[in-house]
Amino acid sequence: MINTIDGGVTAPKGFKASGVACGLKNNGKKDLSIVCSDDIAVAAGVFTTNLVKGHSLQLTMKHIGSGYAKGVVINSGNANACVGEQGQKDAEDMARLAAQLLNCEAGDILVGSTGVIGVPLNMPKLRGGIRTAVSSLSPEGGHDACEAIMTTDLIEKEIAVDIEIQGERVRIGGMAKGSGMIHPNMATMIGIITTDINISRGLLNKAFKEVVGHTFNRVSVDGDTSVCDMVIVLANGEADNAGIVKEDIEYKTFKEALEFVCINLSRMIAKDGEGATKLIEVIAENAMHDEDAYKVVSAIAKSPLVKTAIFGEDANWGRIITAAGYSGADFDPNLVDIFIGDLMVCRNGGALKFDETKAKEILSKKEITIRINLKRGNASDRMWTCDFSYDYVKINGSYRS
Amino acid sequence: MINTIDGGVTAPKGFKASGVACGLKNNGKKDLSIVCSDDIAVAAGVFTTNLVKGHSLQLTMKHIGSGYAKGVVINSGNANACVGEQGQKDAEDMARLAAQLLNCEAGDILVGSTGVIGVPLNMPKLRGGIRTAVSSLSPEGGHDACEAIMTTDLIEKEIAVDIEIQGERVRIGGMAKGSGMIHPNMATMIGIITTDINISRGLLNKAFKEVVGHTFNRVSVDGDTSVCDMVIVLANGEADNAGIVKEDIEYKTFKEALEFVCINLSRMIAKDGEGATKLIEVIAENAMHDEDAYKVVSAIAKSPLVKTAIFGEDANWGRIITAAGYSGADFDPNLVDIFIGDLMVCRNGGALKFDETKAKEILSKKEITIRINLKRGNASDRMWTCDFSYDYVKINGSYRS
Repeated sequence: MINTIDGGVTAPKGFKASGVACGLKNNGKKDLSIVCSDDIAVAAGVFTTNLVKGHSLQLTMKHIGSGYAKGVVINSGNANACVGEQGQKDAEDMARLAAQLLNCEAGDILVGSTGVIGVPLNMPKLRGGIRTAVSSLSPEGGHDACEAIMTTDLIEKEIAVDIEIQGERVRIGGMAKGSGMIHPNMATMIGIITTDINISRGLLNKAFKEVVGHTFNRVSVDGDTSVCDMVIVLANGEADNAGIVKEDIEYKTFKEALEFVCINLSRMIAKDGEGATKLIEVIAENAMHDEDAYKVVSAIAKSPLVKTAIFGEDANWGRIITAAGYSGADFDPNLVDIFIGDLMVCRNGGALKFDETKAKEILSKKEITIRINLKRGNASDRMWTCDFSYDYVKINGSYRS
Repeated sequence: MINTIDGGVTAPKGFKASGVACGLKNNGKKDLSIVCSDDIAVAAGVFTTNLVKGHSLQLTMKHIGSGYAKGVVINSGNANACVGEQGQKDAEDMARLAAQLLNCEAGDILVGSTGVIGVPLNMPKLRGGIRTAVSSLSPEGGHDACEAIMTTDLIEKEIAVDIEIQGERVRIGGMAKGSGMIHPNMATMIGIITTDINISRGLLNKAFKEVVGHTFNRVSVDGDTSVCDMVIVLANGEADNAGIVKEDIEYKTFKEALEFVCINLSRMIAKDGEGATKLIEVIAENAMHDEDAYKVVSAIAKSPLVKTAIFGEDANWGRIITAAGYSGADFDPNLVDIFIGDLMVCRNGGALKFDETKAKEILSKKEITIRINLKRGNASDRMWTCDFSYDYVKINGSYRS
């Protein structure tokens, strides 16, 4: 039984957070976020597969190698990417200063940066921000931290749940940001998950990687994979559960709750995609291999033609089968059925007389499911995306200005 | 010496064409096009790689197997795709009727259809159109034929050239359509090339496939590969040249002229991409392997973030290096130089202070070159695309309506 609770990343015991404005964003909004465990936590992360990697992200990949961390410092407004050696030094400075103030080793601090690429960080402002953020840390700071990682996001993305593990209450909290430059793999955004569960490093890492593969790695806003994206989980063991050390039923319960948190954050990201007016869930069923199902959902979720048609509330299934066709997946076009919501619009790869009024009604909703049944095997996959609107163009035509 | 001449596909000797309105388009515009050689011509074609293939295209792939054809019948307004067995019969009917009226075998007629997917052709209208079009065939009909294949195209795309081969004048004409659902491979649109050169089937085929690979297959409007796309060349041997039967200097001259025609048509397609305000030429230089250069230009040309930034005239090179980074190409981010026009905006993968006024000036032009130098080897590639505007969304939000 998974209960949704308040508090975001500070819902789990032994976590504090804060979010402050230090002047990296021109509009005066919060831009510096810290999430921190009272004691060292076991940690795992999943990182962008982009060959180009932001300097902050590179440092975090190094620090998380130990499997432990105490806190995460994230700035928004500047990606700290593609600025040469200075970027590396700045990331190290961020970690060093935070470690000093939080009384730990620099290697226990993870750092993240998101925003414009190719502009050096304003370190005087950032240092001031870290100082203020550390002094503002609070067990109620989850929401502020969540606000401070936003860039073009319109909506804060946070959630927390509690579950019973080994007879004790255990909490998982999460926050995420990401609205544009979003496509697997990986990490299509920045996400921080906290939990007070007592779990081994190895099992935390295993559960996290599997869950991220089917959640955050299945969100596509525009097909662009950012250079700064990461999802981190910290488990500090402050809950009273005995400890998860094998893949038993309790491990499964935890993993399901973790997945619940990650699915919710993933859907929030797709729904708040730049310029989005609708959340689209794309499902491929009965593919021959996992790979085929993935290729099909990925091509449909990326297609600007599908996404603009959904924006226009037009049941143009021809674009859906076209995208499947060029996806590289192996299937027989003459077997394909396509559904928009629960309305079948294509049977055996061919046109079907369907009720256009009903189609309009389904497409006028805020959440739309596109389902394609390949009728070839048992593999399936799912991806979340959003429609493509005038506002996407507007937002991205002048991002640096 | 390549001279541009008038006449489009009817510029070469022994070709007639026509374009008429038969009512497939609701707006009364021309929608049925015939291009026809007086005598049987050698023929070659390149076809969509989409697993889903339109019924007309499938028939053409079959007919062109002989290496000969007399004419091409193309309708716009309806793709004749995904309508089951009826679609196959309709394509056969189109070819049969045209053959009867043109006094040849059905197997000598190629057919093409472009427009909405999943709606059966209105055959009574189409048959009427074929009759009218055949009776209107004229050596001056190239332009009408070109108009009749347009869908969301705003501009007619045609060109013709003459060159000297083996001491004689030889002509090449071409027309193309395509504005949305455009991305290699292949054929990103419908294109018909005519020529009166006397050349062997094998060499025509070889020259054509190589040229198409670097021209039409390097155009991307939105990353969507259509199910109906094809480029066809017909060479009827009406010119007085002795005949090209080996890869000599005369073959090379012909191939260059063919490439000139195809480059021009390709650029016209990108420039007239749905909603486009600018033509973008993306060049990758000094990649390790051809494959890497292709991946880089392809990812940049497809990126909605790059394309919206160019629409907004914003020199956001971070998005260019990001796209290269996730392209799957093998390169060292720390070596990359990026140029917008002749302005260097990134050196060795890092930010560079550049003149924003000059950048604005370059980006305000109608044709923009993005060049990325990987400094790793000698391979290069080039792709044409366009910017991504409000109008792309508008056009594609309501295509079926």
